[in-house]
Amino acid sequence: MNRPIGVIDSGVGGLTVLHELNRQLPTEKFIYLGDTLRCPYGPKEEIDVQQYTWEMVHYLMKFEIKMLVIACNTATALVLEQLKDNLPIPVIGVIESGARAAIKATQTNQVGIIGTENTIQSEAYERALKRIKPHINTLGVACPNFVPMIENGDFVSLNAKRIVEGSLQFMNHHPRIDTLILGCTHYPIIQPLIEEVIGENVTVLSSAVETGFEVSTVLTFYELFNTNQQENQEPLIFTTGSLQVFQRLKEEIFQLKSATLKQVSLT
Amino acid sequence: MNRPIGVIDSGVGGLTVLHELNRQLPTEKFIYLGDTLRCPYGPKEEIDVQQYTWEMVHYLMKFEIKMLVIACNTATALVLEQLKDNLPIPVIGVIESGARAAIKATQTNQVGIIGTENTIQSEAYERALKRIKPHINTLGVACPNFVPMIENGDFVSLNAKRIVEGSLQFMNHHPRIDTLILGCTHYPIIQPLIEEVIGENVTVLSSAVETGFEVSTVLTFYELFNTNQQENQEPLIFTTGSLQVFQRLKEEIFQLKSATLKQVSLT
Repeated sequence: MNRPIGVIDSGVGGLTVLHELNRQLPTEKFIYLGDTLRCPYGPKEEIDVQQYTWEMVHYLMKFEIKMLVIACNTATALVLEQLKDNLPIPVIGVIESGARAAIKATQTNQVGIIGTENTIQSEAYERALKRIKPHINTLGVACPNFVPMIENGDFVSLNAKRIVEGSLQFMNHHPRIDTLILGCTHYPIIQPLIEEVIGENVTVLSSAVETGFEVSTVLTFYELFNTNQQENQEPLIFTTGSLQVFQRLKEEIFQLKSATLKQVSLT
Repeated sequence: MNRPIGVIDSGVGGLTVLHELNRQLPTEKFIYLGDTLRCPYGPKEEIDVQQYTWEMVHYLMKFEIKMLVIACNTATALVLEQLKDNLPIPVIGVIESGARAAIKATQTNQVGIIGTENTIQSEAYERALKRIKPHINTLGVACPNFVPMIENGDFVSLNAKRIVEGSLQFMNHHPRIDTLILGCTHYPIIQPLIEEVIGENVTVLSSAVETGFEVSTVLTFYELFNTNQQENQEPLIFTTGSLQVFQRLKEEIFQLKSATLKQVSLT
């Protein structure tokens, strides 16, 4: 099944997932689309996020993708079920795998979640966690400043650290939490800052690694593995907005040097 | 879907998988069957392992299981495809998840595998690893003495340590390996000994934790999660042989105190 796998996000955040997919599944071909022009999705109306997500999906379906990975927590929270019900290919979000990773990691069953306003308000993580382990306790905190900061290329400055400290203040007053889910695929880009602020007693988890594992599992179950055994396929990266931060992240952080980067229009 | 999940092994080894399943999926009901009477499967003829495995499966199908977990690497290597092709329920082995765990963990792409004679000779791990990541290098070593030793309840003695040292001697002369797969579900029971012998530069992985993750993923995809939200379901543990080592392991090591343990006959 030598067709590509589609990966979508509101912006650059999904590159954290693409990086893991590319590492764990080197014979697969990935096509990534980040809707940087309309980012952030976190504070937008649900109906707008649905429309934008469908536009991305329609764009990628032209490439005959065999599977869709929604590498965006907001779109997973608001559109996953619709996409699963209506697309003829397997669709994988990032929330289930993040929830499963937390269940594997927590010893105290006290789990924190940080994400965009939409993701936190949707309580999608709480539902995913409690469906599997009903007596788990959760604390969700929205961090609306993180995505705009990261999309602006600010990952390490003193200003970035102050924003992280301010956003996690409430979380820090709940010392019983032993596991923190980065419920937004942008956040692993500032994971060192988050870990510094939250302290060493809390395991900080992104869903990127486990989403790679989950995509691999589903490829096996649907017998969709690429039969072309050539490794290190070059990903295609599309964005609706500026190429600048993409360029920097793909080379400096994700070693995706050979990836092709291109600006596209969805409308 | 409030039906149980079946778990089979040649003996007590699969308890390492049952423990993780029970921890990660506390609302699910598990029925375990260990064929201690005919253990070990590792050195047996393929046709015998197939027959024994099918006898276990027929026994568990009477309980209307909704999913089957083959918590035995030998049976996974020799019977998984047959079971997948012929059973009306999802079937999950332990080799794919062990391979995926190694791909997540390795930095050098040099992966060692230890298992029974049958598992190593089948090269099932090599195939699973190379299908996903063709340029990975593997070294498989059969450790035929481990399973009989563990089934005899010998996990920590000086004799056990000597057996582990002797079996891993060859592996130790290949210092480039950075990841070692415990390709037999019995081996996590002696994981401290194996880690001591193999040294701190090698990450030792069992597939138990990741099999739990994989079962959780498949339950989601097939919409098979238990809708009864009662946690800490009591597992049923059946064995064809002696109850003694089961009793000791379930209480001392796996905190499955409330599990019901019973001897049964398959023939």
